[in-house]
Amino acid sequence: MNPLVLSDADYKAVFERITQLALEYVASVGDQPSFPKITGSETEALFAKPLPEQGMGNCSLDDLDRVIEFVRVTSPRFLGYVLGSGEPIGAAADLLASVLNQNVTAWRSSPSAVTIERVVVGWLAEAIGCTGFSGSLTGGGSSANLMGLALAREARVPANECGARPGTVYASEQIHMSIPKAIALLGIGRENLRLIPCDDNFRIRVDLLRTSVERDVRAGLTPIAIVGSAGTVSTGSIDPLPELAEVARESGAWFHVDGAYGALAAIAEPAKFAGLNQTDSLSLDPHKWLYQPLDCGCLLYRDAAAARRAFSHTGDYAKSLVDDPVEGFAFFEETIELSRRFRALKIWLSLRYHGLGNFREAIRNDLTHAQLLAGLIAKQPELELLAPVALSAVCFRYRSRNDADRECDALNQEILQRVVRRGKVFLSNATIHGSFALRACIVNHRTTPEDIEQVVSEVLAVGRELSAG
Amino acid sequence: MNPLVLSDADYKAVFERITQLALEYVASVGDQPSFPKITGSETEALFAKPLPEQGMGNCSLDDLDRVIEFVRVTSPRFLGYVLGSGEPIGAAADLLASVLNQNVTAWRSSPSAVTIERVVVGWLAEAIGCTGFSGSLTGGGSSANLMGLALAREARVPANECGARPGTVYASEQIHMSIPKAIALLGIGRENLRLIPCDDNFRIRVDLLRTSVERDVRAGLTPIAIVGSAGTVSTGSIDPLPELAEVARESGAWFHVDGAYGALAAIAEPAKFAGLNQTDSLSLDPHKWLYQPLDCGCLLYRDAAAARRAFSHTGDYAKSLVDDPVEGFAFFEETIELSRRFRALKIWLSLRYHGLGNFREAIRNDLTHAQLLAGLIAKQPELELLAPVALSAVCFRYRSRNDADRECDALNQEILQRVVRRGKVFLSNATIHGSFALRACIVNHRTTPEDIEQVVSEVLAVGRELSAG
Repeated sequence: MNPLVLSDADYKAVFERITQLALEYVASVGDQPSFPKITGSETEALFAKPLPEQGMGNCSLDDLDRVIEFVRVTSPRFLGYVLGSGEPIGAAADLLASVLNQNVTAWRSSPSAVTIERVVVGWLAEAIGCTGFSGSLTGGGSSANLMGLALAREARVPANECGARPGTVYASEQIHMSIPKAIALLGIGRENLRLIPCDDNFRIRVDLLRTSVERDVRAGLTPIAIVGSAGTVSTGSIDPLPELAEVARESGAWFHVDGAYGALAAIAEPAKFAGLNQTDSLSLDPHKWLYQPLDCGCLLYRDAAAARRAFSHTGDYAKSLVDDPVEGFAFFEETIELSRRFRALKIWLSLRYHGLGNFREAIRNDLTHAQLLAGLIAKQPELELLAPVALSAVCFRYRSRNDADRECDALNQEILQRVVRRGKVFLSNATIHGSFALRACIVNHRTTPEDIEQVVSEVLAVGRELSAG
Repeated sequence: MNPLVLSDADYKAVFERITQLALEYVASVGDQPSFPKITGSETEALFAKPLPEQGMGNCSLDDLDRVIEFVRVTSPRFLGYVLGSGEPIGAAADLLASVLNQNVTAWRSSPSAVTIERVVVGWLAEAIGCTGFSGSLTGGGSSANLMGLALAREARVPANECGARPGTVYASEQIHMSIPKAIALLGIGRENLRLIPCDDNFRIRVDLLRTSVERDVRAGLTPIAIVGSAGTVSTGSIDPLPELAEVARESGAWFHVDGAYGALAAIAEPAKFAGLNQTDSLSLDPHKWLYQPLDCGCLLYRDAAAARRAFSHTGDYAKSLVDDPVEGFAFFEETIELSRRFRALKIWLSLRYHGLGNFREAIRNDLTHAQLLAGLIAKQPELELLAPVALSAVCFRYRSRNDADRECDALNQEILQRVVRRGKVFLSNATIHGSFALRACIVNHRTTPEDIEQVVSEVLAVGRELSAG
């Protein structure tokens, strides 16, 4: 027998034990501290061990308990960054995806997986009002934004053959870091990204955008893309998408929207997202606001030919030999990836198990919870809301005695660290008008109103403790 | 209760049913046809259905049988492309990775997952003779090659701020398509990729490389990178790495090696891969020759500071607030990704369960099987080996009556399609000196000598049938 091949009984023992661990974890998620008690050097001492030459067999499973003990749990009170809460039906489907080990490159490499991914992408487009868009699932929003901007570059200042040529990209000051990172990678150069100021609601100032575009065009520069946010990462603000579409049309620029955080909320609140269907490309992250396990991002686009112009350079050994349009389809002609995991299976199963209606309601709950939190903050004189709540991100701070900015920043930085260490709620931070903000971002299908109340009580408890000291 | 939250009993029912399906699939892998009997329009009829508004509950699981029925099975006789065979212990670990839903961005977001990924990357480096290299796991070889070349570009002709500047990249004509794709994406321009001819063993001609570099330098161009192959995708050839390292040193170019297919074979045959540890960066794919489920690529580099120069542009909301070197570590400062799946868990468990020794033996078996196949082909006058077998890719063809190239190409193209449809073995194709080749690539921990014999008997059976007709 081959050295890595086990008996069916051996596989059964391992699969059943891991399934048991997984179920115990799911059952316990509500009771776990939101951050484990461990230091950097302790994690190293636990895990930085030599690779064994001899197999440990089932003993190797014993250490999974320590792995689980020292993760950051996506409890109902995990409200940091923008991270979906990991819907367990999707996670169960991921086991099957890994066992089937489909390489979702082309229909001929995986008939059912390629078909299901194309179907799921169509469902996502339809669910947010972009019926007819096609696209693919990606490793996340960074990759989707990179691909969207690659489409833009190749459409406006083709660079694949001859190298990057000058051009400019426009986005608001609140744009996610993946956009400048993509612009750097694409050879456009971050100094050609115009960061346009925002209004009081952290939405791009379209008048200033127009001025900036006009100035560049007069200077002989080519506007490559206008990038809107459908949910800025700090405050969840949604740029005025129809107006951005208009500026893009006028200037001949590509219109990309970064909807990694917010666009899937269009399932619950389509009116907030008017204009999404006027984009040329659009990123969204089912591993955020569709609660799917990592990784699962998505890029949608209006015109698949633009994606093929950007990405189709197939080697002989991967070239398709058939003419049928379904059987000849290859994702690698439209993406930066070649090998691709069967990411669609989890969305497919999770959406069909629960139905879109339940996802809509879960997203509505998150939006309601954010308003609840904002309301509780407004009622507490020791707390201060730092930005309007456009979606589900709530930025606030504990007031220091004299509201001096530096003192207040230091106090809230200390509050954040202590709150996280206490392990009841997990918050992260943002910078709002130059000030340090505590930030709760609610894209968590497990969160309840009681969990939201704990955010306030935890911050108040720590803030009072520090202010008294 | 929240709309997407189920009872522990409901989760148990779903997890146990899917685990059962997964185990049945693993047990049946050896008996399945290597390609399912289905057409493009049949897959669409089966799966292109509307997204249900109401959840289907457990009924949604019924259709998983059809998904499984119409995958391309990684049977012991799957020898297409370069795709690992999906080691089931790794797949089981993937269930836990999805349930834990760690975002492997930074230590503070996932203490155990970030630590384990750093440990696993160190193990991989050590296993192939690159002790001391660091890096990260990626979605695959394309992404690892893109990142390696981004490091090169930023080290030699910095472009992140000001945009891409002229420079040249060198690789052999046999280089994988992900390299020109990366060069296009990075704004270097594919016309600045010099494709250097190969010797009879499909290894880059170092003398011609040197001439090309010197010509470009005289013309005022900057050599950005020399890219070697440690396992070309068609024939598994390994470029003379120490000599490439020397040319890179002389010319000031970055030295990247695409080891996506082959580098992990250094675990079994280190002598073939002398010079790997002289690279600046190096891609390898545990989802290929470490048999791990998709997705799991890896980029290794000598100098983490170069990765940070290329990729560190962190937004405020993600900035680390701590000084401890372990607790302050963030993968997104060294990669193009922000959100990242816990890819390391499967390698960690699979390597510890089986031990490195068993992987070494499995890789040796693949190498032996390739030589066995080459030997069987040599013994058959109707078959012709088209390239030396450097690793585990075997390129050959069925001889046509008069060996006229066009006739022979058409015949073998037809043979390939029929062999795949018969479902006993799965082969893919390559172009060798302009001719269409059948190609078996053996990176499959389940393959036995009997499976290899079937490759020959299937091709002979179909070839004779077609030649007789």
